[in-house]
Amino acid sequence: MANKRIGKQTVQLENPPSILSAASIVGPKEGEGPLRMYFDMIIDDELWGEKSWEKAESKLMRETIDKLLSKSGISNQSVNYILAGDLLNQISASTFALRDTGISFLGVYGACSTMTESMSLGSFLVDGKFADNVICITSSHFCSAEKQFRYPLELGSQRPPTAQWTVTGSGGVLLSSQGSGPYITHVTTGKIVDMGIKDANNMGAAMAPAAADTLVTHFKDTGIYPDSYDLILTGDLGTLGMEITNELMKQQGYDISDRYNDCGAMIYDVKRQDAHCGGSGCGCSATVFGGFVYQELLKGNLNNVLFIATGALLSPSSSQQGESIPGIAHAVAIHRNLS
Amino acid sequence: MANKRIGKQTVQLENPPSILSAASIVGPKEGEGPLRMYFDMIIDDELWGEKSWEKAESKLMRETIDKLLSKSGISNQSVNYILAGDLLNQISASTFALRDTGISFLGVYGACSTMTESMSLGSFLVDGKFADNVICITSSHFCSAEKQFRYPLELGSQRPPTAQWTVTGSGGVLLSSQGSGPYITHVTTGKIVDMGIKDANNMGAAMAPAAADTLVTHFKDTGIYPDSYDLILTGDLGTLGMEITNELMKQQGYDISDRYNDCGAMIYDVKRQDAHCGGSGCGCSATVFGGFVYQELLKGNLNNVLFIATGALLSPSSSQQGESIPGIAHAVAIHRNLS
Repeated sequence: MANKRIGKQTVQLENPPSILSAASIVGPKEGEGPLRMYFDMIIDDELWGEKSWEKAESKLMRETIDKLLSKSGISNQSVNYILAGDLLNQISASTFALRDTGISFLGVYGACSTMTESMSLGSFLVDGKFADNVICITSSHFCSAEKQFRYPLELGSQRPPTAQWTVTGSGGVLLSSQGSGPYITHVTTGKIVDMGIKDANNMGAAMAPAAADTLVTHFKDTGIYPDSYDLILTGDLGTLGMEITNELMKQQGYDISDRYNDCGAMIYDVKRQDAHCGGSGCGCSATVFGGFVYQELLKGNLNNVLFIATGALLSPSSSQQGESIPGIAHAVAIHRNLS
Repeated sequence: MANKRIGKQTVQLENPPSILSAASIVGPKEGEGPLRMYFDMIIDDELWGEKSWEKAESKLMRETIDKLLSKSGISNQSVNYILAGDLLNQISASTFALRDTGISFLGVYGACSTMTESMSLGSFLVDGKFADNVICITSSHFCSAEKQFRYPLELGSQRPPTAQWTVTGSGGVLLSSQGSGPYITHVTTGKIVDMGIKDANNMGAAMAPAAADTLVTHFKDTGIYPDSYDLILTGDLGTLGMEITNELMKQQGYDISDRYNDCGAMIYDVKRQDAHCGGSGCGCSATVFGGFVYQELLKGNLNNVLFIATGALLSPSSSQQGESIPGIAHAVAIHRNLS
């Protein structure tokens, strides 16, 4: 067996990459939420001076990359790869954001699991000595996502209580072979789990079984107990998906509830901000990680974090054709210090 | 600098993965083309017993995976990762194809460059000792692509002479730390190149500058001369894109024309089969590689191949918003024997 593998789906990194910088830019609604003090920038309106929401989403990613570079003091010539993806068809927010960077680009897609998918692959690139510096980044945009996946915003369609609110924002990290942490130490790559949920307005329920599957696999593969982590953080299951995940974990003998949270449940004050079950979209876990988690790791308020972004691998066509929603979740373990 | 990097964008693999098996399944039109004897299976009609073209495309990929496994004698429990992507929105051909595999899944998107993107990342996973066996696979389908990117087939829209024909097919490889070749030795990862072409019916011209950029970078990074390769094979530039690439290479001092071909130009007898400028789609380079190239490598008719799939990173939305077409190309060098 390849000598960095442990258990079924996990890699233990030999040369854990350091997260040299993290950055996040969000929209106005996210900027009114409880995590507002952690974001690098809050834009005033969803168009941000662009002619379309899609172009505004690309700008979010482009400007977040600039922040990653300036914070880390790394020039774009020193970045070996960008791993990026988003929710727009043909991941076009990313491709247009990166058009002028001159950096080798590898497009990834895992729906809202894209942030940890890109961090997983980025960790492999650094650990395997294929790269010194890698940017891992994603974005989403409420207006471009509603337009593409649901209804024209102008219709003012009513949303069911299980719906989640797509985050407008881009978040990313710069992984490096240099630096003094926080470090990515383990990568557990999820497999697709589909429990037959067909309601695209109830993504949390569709993704929760995938999250639980990856969590249990991570604990079994590594032999690490949940209480070794200060925070176990899923991507964007929202409040309902969180409840289901807690329940599924208990059924399998793991009570994680005292240290478990979800980016979708954290990014909005869901009642005050009328966000129903919470945030979603690639940008949700990306900005919560790039803002809150990273800064709390640097401050020492968090030391060991298990970060599991979760994706619903549906498309409007697959739903129209009566398909259920396949879910996936990828976990990365992050430690402030290597002990 | 990370110790497997040479030059600006290239990695020289330390433990070159072996391509343990390759497979391809194509549609009826491809099965009437000049490469028909190389494909593992030719389906009789574009629906292949499914209720939609999208489901038929997923079936193409699923059945190709079965062939990869049975040919290599590897069980799906021994495959550590599947790297897959396709042209459908949210890469849904892949996600529904892989739903029941139980294998860790990493979704990739590089438009028609997806085959070499997945082979590049797959090579890193094996070389870096993160995996023993990795499947790299893509698909495309003429009918699902026309429906999504262009016009309903029922309209019978006329196509301009520069248009290409999306290949119906899936092709893939199983990369392994075991085996006796052919081996992937070098990976040159492209950056986005956009020369301002806006005509979505002239993708060859949009992608050719990216292909030339990656080719020149590969030769400069590695110090390898073009005549070290028996075959330099681009993904799906088609006949017009090939001409442009030959010209761009000459302008930069590289005459590759005596050993250069293109999967899009090879897969159809373009005049007899009314395929205009040739084939395109992720499935084009994937099936030509998984069929023709791999078998000719095994027979010893080819020994050293530089394979460069090329992608046009547009979306219907970006074209509607007046954007030009960003191109990208990723190269992998393949050798029958390690000398």
